This record gives sequence, C-alpha cells and structure tokens, in this order.
Amino acid sequence: MSDFVDINVDMGESYGRWSLGDDLGIMPYISSASVACGFHAGDPLTIRKTVQAGIQHGLQIGAHVALPDLLGFGRRRMAVSPEELKEYVIYQIGALHAFVKVEGGELGHVKPHGALYVMCSDDPSLASAVAEAMAELTPGLPLLLLNDNTRSAVEAKGIQLVTEAFVDLDYDADGKLILERHKLARDPEETAKRVLRVIREGKIRTVAGTDITASNRTICLHGDAPNAVEIARTVKSRLEAEGIQIRPLREMLAASV
Amino acid sequence: MSDFVDINVDMGESYGRWSLGDDLGIMPYISSASVACGFHAGDPLTIRKTVQAGIQHGLQIGAHVALPDLLGFGRRRMAVSPEELKEYVIYQIGALHAFVKVEGGELGHVKPHGALYVMCSDDPSLASAVAEAMAELTPGLPLLLLNDNTRSAVEAKGIQLVTEAFVDLDYDADGKLILERHKLARDPEETAKRVLRVIREGKIRTVAGTDITASNRTICLHGDAPNAVEIARTVKSRLEAEGIQIRPLREMLAASV
Amino acid sequence: MSDFVDINVDMGESYGRWSLGDDLGIMPYISSASVACGFHAGDPLTIRKTVQAGIQHGLQIGAHVALPDLLGFGRRRMAVSPEELKEYVIYQIGALHAFVKVEGGELGHVKPHGALYVMCSDDPSLASAVAEAMAELTPGLPLLLLNDNTRSAVEAKGIQLVTEAFVDLDYDADGKLILERHKLARDPEETAKRVLRVIREGKIRTVAGTDITASNRTICLHGDAPNAVEIARTVKSRLEAEGIQIRPLREMLAASV
Amino acid sequence: MSDFVDINVDMGESYGRWSLGDDLGIMPYISSASVACGFHAGDPLTIRKTVQAGIQHGLQIGAHVALPDLLGFGRRRMAVSPEELKEYVIYQIGALHAFVKVEGGELGHVKPHGALYVMCSDDPSLASAVAEAMAELTPGLPLLLLNDNTRSAVEAKGIQLVTEAFVDLDYDADGKLILERHKLARDPEETAKRVLRVIREGKIRTVAGTDITASNRTICLHGDAPNAVEIARTVKSRLEAEGIQIRPLREMLAASV
Repeated sequence: MSDFVDINVDMGESYGRWSLGDDLGIMPYISSASVACGFHAGDPLTIRKTVQAGIQHGLQIGAHVALPDLLGFGRRRMAVSPEELKEYVIYQIGALHAFVKVEGGELGHVKPHGALYVMCSDDPSLASAVAEAMAELTPGLPLLLLNDNTRSAVEAKGIQLVTEAFVDLDYDADGKLILERHKLARDPEETAKRVLRVIREGKIRTVAGTDITASNRTICLHGDAPNAVEIARTVKSRLEAEGIQIRPLREMLAASV
Repeated sequence: MSDFVDINVDMGESYGRWSLGDDLGIMPYISSASVACGFHAGDPLTIRKTVQAGIQHGLQIGAHVALPDLLGFGRRRMAVSPEELKEYVIYQIGALHAFVKVEGGELGHVKPHGALYVMCSDDPSLASAVAEAMAELTPGLPLLLLNDNTRSAVEAKGIQLVTEAFVDLDYDADGKLILERHKLARDPEETAKRVLRVIREGKIRTVAGTDITASNRTICLHGDAPNAVEIARTVKSRLEAEGIQIRPLREMLAASV
Repeated sequence: MSDFVDINVDMGESYGRWSLGDDLGIMPYISSASVACGFHAGDPLTIRKTVQAGIQHGLQIGAHVALPDLLGFGRRRMAVSPEELKEYVIYQIGALHAFVKVEGGELGHVKPHGALYVMCSDDPSLASAVAEAMAELTPGLPLLLLNDNTRSAVEAKGIQLVTEAFVDLDYDADGKLILERHKLARDPEETAKRVLRVIREGKIRTVAGTDITASNRTICLHGDAPNAVEIARTVKSRLEAEGIQIRPLREMLAASV
Repeated sequence: MSDFVDINVDMGESYGRWSLGDDLGIMPYISSASVACGFHAGDPLTIRKTVQAGIQHGLQIGAHVALPDLLGFGRRRMAVSPEELKEYVIYQIGALHAFVKVEGGELGHVKPHGALYVMCSDDPSLASAVAEAMAELTPGLPLLLLNDNTRSAVEAKGIQLVTEAFVDLDYDADGKLILERHKLARDPEETAKRVLRVIREGKIRTVAGTDITASNRTICLHGDAPNAVEIARTVKSRLEAEGIQIRPLREMLAASV
C-alpha cells in the first residue's frame, strides 16, 4: 500500500468570457494541475491566472495538450497526422511552459486531453509523436496516459509513461473510459471509496461489474463536474483519515528511483 | 557609415493549406527572420519548418507576436487591454521559443506584427505591456519598433528598443507608415537605393517629398510582396557591391556594447 | 405613456462546452431575443436550441451580429472596414435566419453586439454598411442602435432605426454606455424603477446625476448578468402591476404605422 | 451517351489574406461552383466575390459545407455527431444562401467538402443528418456525394442524391477516393480523356487498373490544383469538339424528370 498519492485535476478550462470549473475552490485539496494550453480551452490570461494560483497552492503544473478544437472542447477525435501532432504538442508545451517560468515554477508533466488522451492510449504512432515532442523539448518529464497499450512506443523515445486511474468516469467491460461531453455529478463518498480501492488494491470496478487493474500513483478528478469541489474535498478528507498523503507526482517518481 | 546592417523579413506566414511568401527563396539574402507565432498566421507545422530552415541559413530568429486575428491577418487594430496583451505576448514567445530550442537555436528578438506594431509604436501602455512580458520571459532580448515614441516606456522595463527602417512601405508626411493589407510589388533597384540611403544618411523620403530620420541598424523587407525574392536578392547584391555586410542584429548589438 | 413595451435580451451566448446565461429561465418574462450568430458566441447547436425555445415562448427573434472575436466576446473594438463589415453582417443574418426559418418563425430585427453596437452608434460609415447589408437581404426589418447619431446614414439605405434604452448598464455624463466585459449584478427593484421611468418619462439617470432622453419602445436587459432571471421577473411583475404589457417590437412598429 | 454534362469546381477557398485557386480563371470553362461556407475556408468577403462572379458567369452555385477545421482545411476526419452536423449544415447553407440571394441568384445544390464528403459517402447516420438539414431548409435541392452507399438514408429524408465522378483524383482498388491534402497537378489531356470516358462509358480506371462505374451527370474538377485553369480549359475544349455541352446540373435534373 502507498502512503501517498497524487491527485491531479484538469484546470484552466475557461476561455475569454466563458468560465468553467472552480479551480480556486479545488486547489486546496489536490496536488497537481493539468493546465489547458489554448487548443481546447485556456486563453493566455486564463493560463496566467491558473498557473499563478496553482504554484501558490504548491501544485505540480502539467501541460494539458489537446486537439485544435475549441468548438468541440477537444472531446471528439480528429484525424491528425503524427507529423502535425508532434508540432502541436511542442507549440502547446512551449506556450504553457512560458507561464510556468515567469511564475517561478517548473513544469512537471504532460497529459493529453480528451479525445487525444484516448487516441494516444490506443495508437502507438500518436503516442510516439507526443513522446518525440517531449524528448526534444522536455526530456525529463513523464507522460500521463490511460493504460499500457502504447508504453513501448513512448519508452522508445526515452520518455517515462505514467498511467492514471479515473474515479469519476466509468470504464466499460473492456477497460475503456466512457467519455462524457459534459461531466455529470458523482457521489463524493462513492468516489472517495473508489480512490481508496485504487490505492490499496490497484483495482477499479467497471460498469460490467468486473475489476480492472489501475495504477495507484496518480488519480484524476475532473474539474468540470458540477460538484467537483465537494468531490475533491471529500476525497482529501477520507485519504487523510486513512493516513494517506496527497503529494505531487514529481515526488513519487523521485522516490521511486 | 555602418559597414554592416541587419536585413529582417517577416516569415512563416502560411497557415494550414494556405501558403504565403517564398521564405526559402528569400533566406539566402537576409540575416534575420521574424517568425509568425500562430495569432495572425503560422500554424505549428509551418513554424517548425520556418524555424528549422532559418537556423540552417544562419538567420537570427525573432518572435513576430500579433493580435489574435487570423481573419484580418493581424493588420487591423483591436482594443486589447495591456493586461491581456502582456499574456498574449508571453504565450506567443513561449510557443515560438520552444521550436527554436528544439532546433538548437537561440531566440534573438521580439517584433510586434502589423497593427500591433503600429499600436506599440504609438501607445506607451501597450509598448510597456510587451516590454513587461519580455522582462519576465526573455529579459536580454531587444524589442523592434517603428520609432522612439514609446522608448521610455520600453526602457523603463529594462528592455532595449531597436527602431527599424522600412524600405518597401511608404511613410506619410508625419513619418507614419502607410500599411497595406495586401503588399504590393516594389521596384527592386529603387528599394536597394532606399536601403543604401538609410545606411549612409539615416534618412528615408516620405510620400510628401520630405525626409525623416531612420535607424540604420536593421531594415525590414516584407516577405509577402509579390516580388519579395527579387527585392531581397537585389538589395543584397547592391549592398555587397558597396562593401556592406548583412549580419544579424545580435552581432551589431553585441558590437555596440 | 405607452401601454406596452418590448423587453429584449441578448441570448444564445453559449459556445460548445461553455454555457452562459439562463436563457430558458428568462424567456417567460420578455418579448424579444437577440440571438448570437457565431462571431462573438453561439455555435450552430446553441443557435438551434435558442431559436427553437424563443419561438416556443412567442419571442421575436433578432440577429445579434458581432465582430469576429470569440476570444474577446465581441466586446472590444476592431478596425473592420465598412466593406468587410457589410459581408460579415450578411453572413451572420443569413446563418441565423436559416434557423428561424426551419423553426417556422420570422426574423424580427437586427442588432449589433457589444463593441460593434457602440461603433455603429458612433460611426455613420459602419452604420451605413450594416444598413446596406439589411437593405439587400432583409429590407423590412428594423436596426436597433443606441442613439440617433447615425440615424441619417441608416435611413438613407431605407432601413428603419429603433433606439434602445439600457437599464442594467450605466450611461456616463455624455450619455455614452459604460460597457462591462463581465456583466455585474443589478438590484432588480431599482432596475424595474428605471424601466418604468423610461416608459413614462422617456428618461434615464446618468452616473453624473443628470438625465438623458431614452426611447421607450424597446428596453434591453442583459442575459449574462448573474441575477438576470430575477431582474427580468421583477421587471415583468412591476410592469404588469402598472398595466403595461410586454409585447414584441414588431407589434409596436406595426401599430405605429 | 449524354450530350451534356455538368462540370463542377470547388471555389471560394481563400481566407482573409490567403488566396487559393484562380476562380476567375476557371469560371469560363465550367457550369457549377461549390462555394466554401466559412468552416474549412471562405470568409464573408471571399464568399461575396465568389458568388457574384459565379452568377455573372452563369454558374450554378452550391453550398460546399464542411467540418469546422480551418487549420486542416476540412480534409481530416472529425468525430462530429449527427446532431451537431445537422446544425452545422443549416448554419452554412443559410450563410451561403444569403449571398446568393443578394446577388439575385438561386442556390442549386449542396455538397460536403473534403473529409465530410467521404464520411457522408460511408456513414448513413451522417448522410441522413445532412439530408435532414436540407429537407428542413432547402427541400428541393440535390445532395452530391461520392457513391450510392448512403443513398437510402438520403432518400428517406426526401432528398435527391446525385453521385459525382472525379477525374483529377485517383480511386483505389475498392473504388475509394485517394484524398490529397495538397492537390497535385494532373495532365490536362489525360484528364479530358477520363472525362470523355465517364460520359460515354460511365467508367473510371482505378490505380489497380480495374474499372469502376461512375455517374456521368456531374464531374468534379479541383480548383486548388496547380494547373487547374489549364485542365478546365482543355476539358471544355475536348468536350466541345465532341459535341458535348457543359451545362449546370439543375438543367439536367429538370430534363430527367
């Protein structure tokens, strides 16, 4: 059993006049923020404020790279080529990294968003393109994905793959995530129980009633769920009651070396 | 009289399916490229190819930051606030800088594009916002602008201002640039003569027939003129015939310390 | 004193994943909806749902045409030319009108949004461009603007100008609207009193304490204020208590012939 | 053998500063223009000029509806839902139709562009969504697609399907089009021979050397090929030499009733 875990949340998903999620409300309860880079959400002013607040709260900041689809919020597949995806990733990491630097922080991880996340967890050529971008620009950082399907493609580029567990989305019988275009509310106590089971047993129940194996190093909560703050607060409270600390992934990776 | 001068050209202004300018054709004749960062032009794949080719040709690479207006190609004024402009600049420099880094180069300067260029040469609060972004992210780099109107605002942030001379655009009687939404062709020999006059006398003729003072350290040619390659080749040829070398701005600034 | 008035609200200002305003909550209390056309807000699915609900509630539907600036929500000035503005307006009216037609309704008015609204109320060449677009495409519809400054330019194209009164924004001492990038909450009872005073006296108090003359045919409420539903409900209730009916502008214009 | 045929070309694919294709050069040689509606290309000013010129040349104007992907020029698949696609189509037809109306013309057909064209020729649920949009907005117009795969879905909505033949793209052994992100030049004489064979035999040779059946009512040429004007001129000349007239699809459909 781990005695600490990373809780990461997608953040900075507002855009201009449109606000989404209560990032400041959630930050006290988590350890990492994956910040939107402008392709699916996140204008420059939003990025600045999100990175600034995240660093003030001691969060690890990651680049939440996405498909170029504001209208679809990056949640629908697009047939991007590996060649163009690689440059989209460099562009987005570069932009996000600039804000982290001017706020005196360090970039901690890269995580694809939405449909790109699923695509990179299925298709080695796309995972390889993302890893190649990272190898050129941010060679020491880990890439977060859903499963081990594309691990060899990622590691072939010299990039560390860290798989995540999702506790506020459902997995189907094949262990695939069931994406929601608009996040629904979840029961906070049930979600906390799923977190504890991931940490202790490394398992998550699918909608088919079967169990799948889940990584217990970093767990993702969604910031755009209607009761996201309550979920995060409850998860933190239940973990602390069990003596489990919430700590940035960076510390766990260092510890695991 | 200088015996060397920087010739800078705006580059990387294609976007997806649309091509603009013959960057590869011009590169052999100049010393600096100001590369579009995605706000007025320049998708990530175009940026990559442009930065790569520019570094191979030994060009100094600058960030050509712009207003967020693809439809207007950044050539129409928008009432952006200094607060949002500052973050737009950090975002764009960050993105462009990432490509320069992965290609093994160094970023050499920052230059606002189109309407933003004119706005920053008129309005100290906007020039200050750009300079503040640079002070936080790229403190040693020079900012290129049209004139000295906003020099004190720029230098107050610790940023060096370098003014440019334009030889393929007209100045009105007040010394203001006459912007063209679509660049027209210019006579290459006339343009070369204007370049030589800038270098030797520090003067440019306005459309009113009067002369204005012009900086002789860096001279801008437009890559989207119909005969841009011919102009650049002719300018280089005439300068060399006069014993004047075309060298990146970086070397001149170092030399001037 | 009028015994009926039009209350119009800007609607359909969501975009993809981002929701803004409680359109369905406000619809029961008003008579007209100015629907975003996709340039500052309003994706096609949002337009469809908004137009459908508006027609079900018996609202007059107008085209809320805007500058092409999603990031700035159409609330910052852009130097568009009259030539391009005219075509932007035709494009937007055409798109919006298609949804009104398939829902079995009729388009009732055209109203510029945000910065374009102010620009067209100041600059005859821009007001003329909008009116010319309307004269070609929807010649019988009225154009809503802030004041009479550009009336002659509009009427020269054969288009009827209707000026609006704003009761949830402030006017400065010169009678100019003080735009808010993010709408603030207003006191519902105070707002209802301002509405009644417009209807009975044709006057609004400025922030300087002076009065300006205001049209009493159509009054605008903002749907993106935090308490927009409460304001609309209170206004309707107070008007009804005074025997004043809320009816679409179309009926008033017909009645005034 | 037909004694007349429709030659349709995709047009209006410029965007702001970026020009693509020589529409005015091609118009004298063809009978129909499918005009970009702003989603993959085509800003309002470009649409206006294209529709105006097309009507002056007596061309039938169609709406070239596309996926919302300027960066990818609508040439990469996106997982849009039938629900959102239907509204995208209504929006685009509505916008394009407005320009046709103000120019005194009539809209003649609807044709999906790029990846959407292929998707609608494969997937009945997407073809059905497009047909449903047309049934609501433009019930009498034909829908152009690649093949008969989705004919029943289209006809179930009461919309006529017309299949096209492509003579400047290759078909693979399965009769599928081989899309090119950037159109390549083709031999004009060879292309004209392919056109004649389609008209006389209703057949096209695939890259595998086999023949597939092709419709002989409308034939598509691409306006963004480097030698598009020469191809169109040669095709027209060879057809005329054989006594075959180039006439808008509208006339053929009327004739076939």
